Amino acid sequence: MSHSTQFGTQNLSDMQSARNRASVDIASIRAYLHDGRETWEHKYSIVSVISKDPIFDVTGKDFTTRSQRYRSALARMRRIYELQEEHDWTNLDILFALLAIGETLPIHLHNVAFEPVFLAQASKELLKEYADLVIHRGILGCYLQTELGHGTNVGALETTATYLPDTQEFELHSPTMTSSKWWIGALGKTATHGVVQAKLILPDGTDVGPHLFFVQLRSLDDHTLLPGITTGDIGPKAMAGYSAVDNGFARFNRVRIPKWHMLSKFSHVTEDGRYVRPLHAKISYGGMLYIRSGMITGAGWSTAKAITIAIRYATVRRQGTIGSDGLELPVIQYPSVNVRLFPILARAYVFIELGRAMVRSFAEMSERLATGDASLLAEVHATTSGLKVLCSSASVQDMETARRSMGGHGYSAFAGIGRHYAESLPSVTYEGENYVLDQQVVRAALKAFTMLFKNANSQRQKTSELASSLPPSSAYLRLLLPEPDNSQPEPPILLEASWFDPSVLITLLEWRASLLVHEIAQTSHSPDATIYQRVSKASTEAFVAGRVGEMLALLRESEMSTKDQEVVRRLYILYLLTTIEASLTDFLSFGLLRFPPHDSRELPRSRDPARTLRLAILRLCEDLLPEAIGLTDAFGFTDWELDSALGVYDGQVYKALWEQAQTEPLNQTEVPEGYEEFIKPLLLRGQRLARAAKL
Amino acid sequence: MSHSTQFGTQNLSDMQSARNRASVDIASIRAYLHDGRETWEHKYSIVSVISKDPIFDVTGKDFTTRSQRYRSALARMRRIYELQEEHDWTNLDILFALLAIGETLPIHLHNVAFEPVFLAQASKELLKEYADLVIHRGILGCYLQTELGHGTNVGALETTATYLPDTQEFELHSPTMTSSKWWIGALGKTATHGVVQAKLILPDGTDVGPHLFFVQLRSLDDHTLLPGITTGDIGPKAMAGYSAVDNGFARFNRVRIPKWHMLSKFSHVTEDGRYVRPLHAKISYGGMLYIRSGMITGAGWSTAKAITIAIRYATVRRQGTIGSDGLELPVIQYPSVNVRLFPILARAYVFIELGRAMVRSFAEMSERLATGDASLLAEVHATTSGLKVLCSSASVQDMETARRSMGGHGYSAFAGIGRHYAESLPSVTYEGENYVLDQQVVRAALKAFTMLFKNANSQRQKTSELASSLPPSSAYLRLLLPEPDNSQPEPPILLEASWFDPSVLITLLEWRASLLVHEIAQTSHSPDATIYQRVSKASTEAFVAGRVGEMLALLRESEMSTKDQEVVRRLYILYLLTTIEASLTDFLSFGLLRFPPHDSRELPRSRDPARTLRLAILRLCEDLLPEAIGLTDAFGFTDWELDSALGVYDGQVYKALWEQAQTEPLNQTEVPEGYEEFIKPLLLRGQRLARAAKL
Repeated sequence: MSHSTQFGTQNLSDMQSARNRASVDIASIRAYLHDGRETWEHKYSIVSVISKDPIFDVTGKDFTTRSQRYRSALARMRRIYELQEEHDWTNLDILFALLAIGETLPIHLHNVAFEPVFLAQASKELLKEYADLVIHRGILGCYLQTELGHGTNVGALETTATYLPDTQEFELHSPTMTSSKWWIGALGKTATHGVVQAKLILPDGTDVGPHLFFVQLRSLDDHTLLPGITTGDIGPKAMAGYSAVDNGFARFNRVRIPKWHMLSKFSHVTEDGRYVRPLHAKISYGGMLYIRSGMITGAGWSTAKAITIAIRYATVRRQGTIGSDGLELPVIQYPSVNVRLFPILARAYVFIELGRAMVRSFAEMSERLATGDASLLAEVHATTSGLKVLCSSASVQDMETARRSMGGHGYSAFAGIGRHYAESLPSVTYEGENYVLDQQVVRAALKAFTMLFKNANSQRQKTSELASSLPPSSAYLRLLLPEPDNSQPEPPILLEASWFDPSVLITLLEWRASLLVHEIAQTSHSPDATIYQRVSKASTEAFVAGRVGEMLALLRESEMSTKDQEVVRRLYILYLLTTIEASLTDFLSFGLLRFPPHDSRELPRSRDPARTLRLAILRLCEDLLPEAIGLTDAFGFTDWELDSALGVYDGQVYKALWEQAQTEPLNQTEVPEGYEEFIKPLLLRGQRLARAAKL
Repeated sequence: MSHSTQFGTQNLSDMQSARNRASVDIASIRAYLHDGRETWEHKYSIVSVISKDPIFDVTGKDFTTRSQRYRSALARMRRIYELQEEHDWTNLDILFALLAIGETLPIHLHNVAFEPVFLAQASKELLKEYADLVIHRGILGCYLQTELGHGTNVGALETTATYLPDTQEFELHSPTMTSSKWWIGALGKTATHGVVQAKLILPDGTDVGPHLFFVQLRSLDDHTLLPGITTGDIGPKAMAGYSAVDNGFARFNRVRIPKWHMLSKFSHVTEDGRYVRPLHAKISYGGMLYIRSGMITGAGWSTAKAITIAIRYATVRRQGTIGSDGLELPVIQYPSVNVRLFPILARAYVFIELGRAMVRSFAEMSERLATGDASLLAEVHATTSGLKVLCSSASVQDMETARRSMGGHGYSAFAGIGRHYAESLPSVTYEGENYVLDQQVVRAALKAFTMLFKNANSQRQKTSELASSLPPSSAYLRLLLPEPDNSQPEPPILLEASWFDPSVLITLLEWRASLLVHEIAQTSHSPDATIYQRVSKASTEAFVAGRVGEMLALLRESEMSTKDQEVVRRLYILYLLTTIEASLTDFLSFGLLRFPPHDSRELPRSRDPARTLRLAILRLCEDLLPEAIGLTDAFGFTDWELDSALGVYDGQVYKALWEQAQTEPLNQTEVPEGYEEFIKPLLLRGQRLARAAKL
């Protein structure tokens, strides 16, 4: 009888066979995902450097305290900028390197919050003095908006910045305990400077609302706090998330800053204390929108990491039914598993491409904004609000679905997904609470709806003109307009092939959005409590569907072979199908599942109108099954990036789990520390009582 | 200008006002939840003792390493049994005390897995020698089932127990690395003994499948491992969950145990190696079912903790719209908040009562089983499988919804819910993977369906006889039977008042289940990939709805005043309504929302058939709003048990968050450790590059 301490080769050969079965050209799809082969090569070179550098080896991180995690973050921050000089990496390369590292570091806040806001809103004078220091991290910054008592509602922030004309200074002040800045990444211990959002109070006492002020927090000589400033770390986060970031609190006790430290590119205060308004009321929201457009790409890549791990594990994990080879089936072959996982894979692809499109759209808006043209601001605000809600919730939910698909082992820290999940989780609450954002999306949709019908009625514009006046975020409303012959458009009749026709699926999603906007308009005097979420989701999903239509068209322009394009096309169709399936309540409520009468449906005995939709999903997943491993390899993650025993490239998952378990500090001794003090007395007591019981 | 370092009294007075507005008699509802005033008093006395004992003060737990958490768990284990003697607590009292502690300790596995299984399945001989030691914790046990390579599929476990007639011993052996026991709570370092699930191999080589064997793992003298046995801890868990439990691995290298150490109450091996079957093939599943019936109660109380925290915080957190008092509204008043939270409160109440009912039902089944009567086994198996899926997923989802409702602060470790969530999360994968359990539920439902129509056709039994032959888990199938006059029953026509009539709501849920079972029966040749989940959920929710009907009837027998009964009644109706709403896809697919023609619905302009349902939910939540704080106070949690800055009884949430933040170790020094080594060089480098850029 063997008592092997060697792992067998089943995992290895199962993974190899799966790779052999995949027909897609991984390098080609990888180039598509990463915006070209050269971009990929460059990214890979960055990851190669970092993953081999011992400073970035975080083996044993789960065994340390948070203070040690923070210290390791500082070490990695210093190292990444040393490497930047050594390898001549751009700041964009650094952003990518940090994404690859996977763990959020304090420098992240300087990169995505402090720097963009500062550069976009500082006056020429302030930029001249500080821009180079900001860009080269000669100072480290953070973005102080949220307070202990207020988050999303920026208008209710309590921190004040009072203008003192005599000294040409602003006085920053935290009047109450609840006005303490809170949650500010890098504020606790790391940042030397910050941009503070505070209520601007004019000399006559007028409160002109929240504005941004540049403040030095710590001495550049010895890092001690400047007078009047208190900061600290707010403590650990839930589920051990964001361990390495010193989210901080701060209080200001009459802190004076020179007048020119107000971020005054768009609005300012004159020497004598008059307030000069910005061109567009929300022009300073530009910074927030930048963060949001990055969140979509981030959500895509986070989802991609999780689904790579889950699909690899499902490929080698054999359980249950015995197959033709006499072994249990790899669980990925069970429809209940792949129908759960492949839509997540589809969403990863969609969000990655979508993120790219939104970054382009944001760049265009920024360019115009810089010249004072705020025409695109409202549209970008509406779309990024909706996308922030959609992508953050979907990504977090998908990670957890992926984690659970891995059964018991998914709960091990070595599986990795739990860590990614805990790190991504705050995205559903920061940068705008989702329920508040939903209202903003709905407001924009209702505005477009009202404008459309006002124009339709009053100006008797042609339908085609009206339709083209709609911005992309509410283009779906054109379906509510009458046809040229004055008839009302109708939703499509669905044939079996319709489920595989993206133009039909996109139209269905647009119908759902338009009818929900119509519904909320009709019942706005008495809304139920979930209509806002439903409308926001429908509106955003219709927008995304439109973008998926564009992605499908762009596939033909890619480098990929026709065969590979067809595989990716199937993924996008799966995305559209499962988006419909997830909100069947809406489609059924508004009668959008319309089938031909006396149809020769394959399965007449079913009473379920959505059955053919579900069978189409099942069928697409079957088609995608042999390609799944290739489609995840195409993300290009190294084992170092995934940091998961269950997601190792070669599939030797059990060996990896075993080896990681041997590193657990509790295993350093056979008898645990605490035995003599605690376990032994407990046992002796129990034995004593047992003897007494026998008598 | 004030710079107060004192917190104001707004939180305090807001919480007090909310309590003043609540009309429910908290002590009375508390007695209802806790099974009587005396039981509550007794529980409270236990919590009082523990919460005042310094050993149970886990302040600073988030700042330690996992090894330190484990050690603190051992200290608490020892202390709880010392207290047991001091205060004469029963083992049931200890179970409650451990639940109050909130963190899972290694002793938990002895209590809920090892002990019940041992006592239920050991032979008289084995009980005589060990029962007292087990009961008094003179030995510490664990339950070794799951392996590295196999979990849910018990039949595929690889560990072997081979009978050796010459020495009258079994030889336990781990033939491969994947046969290593894995995930076993308390196995890593704590347990001295265990019950091992292994394939019983007879002398002639016949494999008679998994059976249970009692094994000593460690010496009772010095806790070293016995020869041939390797154990260790499997490493940390995701999201820092289950930190204090040493989930372990074990390998057996030809370990000999005496024959009488097989758990042989129901099946055994004769001296010469013949196998004697158990009475009922699944009779040894009794242990697993016990664990599952406790999970329902556990899910209820976990949900209760989370919703208490969320509702208390929402009561004092003011954001957004300015109310009549000139202050922002407490967020609990926003429908989008309370419509999310109150159904969770309802589910907590339902699961707590349901758990009590299921424990009674399990006790009845156990009694019969002990006499060899296995008639209730299949029914309890079917219901507990479905309930395990339902309650574990609902509870975990509800905790996360509650956490997110708290906005940014919900992500702080001090909010507490993240910890409860991470601790509850494995319940969706352990004790049977949910997707596998769904299949078992469906199998049982289809069996009842087939039997029913076989009886209906062949025996021409009367409908009433057939209906009463259905067990509670599939009682809803009676709706598919013809009426006495041979007409087919029809679902109810819904009036506005129907949404507040529990009998209608229960009937609707039963219709949904019966039509889904009919659907899966019709399409079983070609199932789509989600039909099993839908049927399992529908079947279980119909079962729960029936039990809620019983709970409503039992309300009248409770001590509560009529007014208070009405409040709890509303909660149960809210449970039924939101259960329907969450699965509207099914109701709409099968035409179950039927309204009278030409009805005078209040809102004719809506095209959404579920609008009146959603408005009913909105209205119930409005009605419950003033009582929410009372209904959560009725759970009786102390601040020590909740361990949450946002859930403090007096509502001073911001003060609690601030004070906890001051305990963060990073705040012990103004300048962080690592500044000189890492931050300073980074800054100097940046300043150097900035100067160079200026030139």
